[in-house]
Amino acid sequence: MAASDVKILGAWTSPVAMRPRIALNVKNVDYEFQEENLDSKSELLFKSNPVYKKIPIMIHNDKPICESLIIVQYIDEVFTSGPSLLPSDLYERATARFWATYIDDKWFSALFGTANPKTDQEKATAIEGLTSGLALLEEAFEKISKGKGFFGGETIGYLDITLGSFLGFLRVAETLSGMNYIDETKTPNLHGWAKRFCSDPSVKDLMPETKKLLEFAKMHFSGGLGAQRK
Amino acid sequence: MAASDVKILGAWTSPVAMRPRIALNVKNVDYEFQEENLDSKSELLFKSNPVYKKIPIMIHNDKPICESLIIVQYIDEVFTSGPSLLPSDLYERATARFWATYIDDKWFSALFGTANPKTDQEKATAIEGLTSGLALLEEAFEKISKGKGFFGGETIGYLDITLGSFLGFLRVAETLSGMNYIDETKTPNLHGWAKRFCSDPSVKDLMPETKKLLEFAKMHFSGGLGAQRK
Repeated sequence: MAASDVKILGAWTSPVAMRPRIALNVKNVDYEFQEENLDSKSELLFKSNPVYKKIPIMIHNDKPICESLIIVQYIDEVFTSGPSLLPSDLYERATARFWATYIDDKWFSALFGTANPKTDQEKATAIEGLTSGLALLEEAFEKISKGKGFFGGETIGYLDITLGSFLGFLRVAETLSGMNYIDETKTPNLHGWAKRFCSDPSVKDLMPETKKLLEFAKMHFSGGLGAQRK
Repeated sequence: MAASDVKILGAWTSPVAMRPRIALNVKNVDYEFQEENLDSKSELLFKSNPVYKKIPIMIHNDKPICESLIIVQYIDEVFTSGPSLLPSDLYERATARFWATYIDDKWFSALFGTANPKTDQEKATAIEGLTSGLALLEEAFEKISKGKGFFGGETIGYLDITLGSFLGFLRVAETLSGMNYIDETKTPNLHGWAKRFCSDPSVKDLMPETKKLLEFAKMHFSGGLGAQRK
């Protein structure tokens, strides 16, 4: 697949913009990447996503696709020669979609909430949401991975991409709070999974360094970690 | 398909619980329906959706599937003998998913916000969000339906089900505000579509009467229309 056919508009700091790039890497599809300055977005971005005016956007054969998980599903359906991202078993596919929605709709807001809590109570609630969510995902990993390395089995799949894209900001949240949310004792499955995910060839060059991401977060997110979500 | 294979847990007042039922009707699949008392939910509900403890839930061959749009996609993938709910063209499929996500994540909160605004400013913002969203969907209908009766073409599809399930509460919101949000002048495409949708055999026995729904809303939703969402 020639690079000119596929273009991704994103930003190195954006977890959700990492998703289509990982998916394309897993599928072994070349693409062109356009780094957006989010303080001065490109004409192409406004034209391609007039409803949300947000990254990530994938442009495929001159047509835009928006919303990270919709893009990942589109990539899975269009580039069928690479490994499947969603399970072929339909019940397992619904289960992967369920946990992906859980991560974006519920777990992420707890991760976000740990960054800049206004009160001790807010901080405690966010940490409780974050850790209880990780406990659920730890248990889900056991069932879904069936003893293999990833939620997707032998290779990175839809749910790996959904959760894994937040690992950079999870590390930032760990640094800010001085706590380890994923560790060998509480979440041994996720601990091993996170290591494998970050060192996978489809991910390792995309995962931002925690130190750089922390600097960025401190400079840009006075309201919390999540200003760039979607 | 025997009714015993498929069971839906829902409530007559819930827009999102209507979605799997419409999808099964379009596919001509029999199912058993269990009306949940949301003040005293069943054991089966808690067991089947321990994460959210919410309707709708579909139980298929003793396995639960949760989240309305995930259930609708599952129904589309499992029961392939009926009409397709999602477009077969992959770009059109991504487009249907985009607008469905827009409706649930953005447009719905405006609909919800019109019900019990705390200030005139809040009311104006909600009405602006609701009507500008409908203007976008009016334009989208023209492109997506390609001159046919539904977003899904000749028959009701994924996006019809997503938006159409909110028509009952849209009428409640219209009654409460004394405004017509969908009408022949501002949104002629959606006006015709809403009529066709509500009189379709797969929908008409499921769409609650506005008067009954209004009574229910006044009794139950002091905080707004959306307490039962998901």
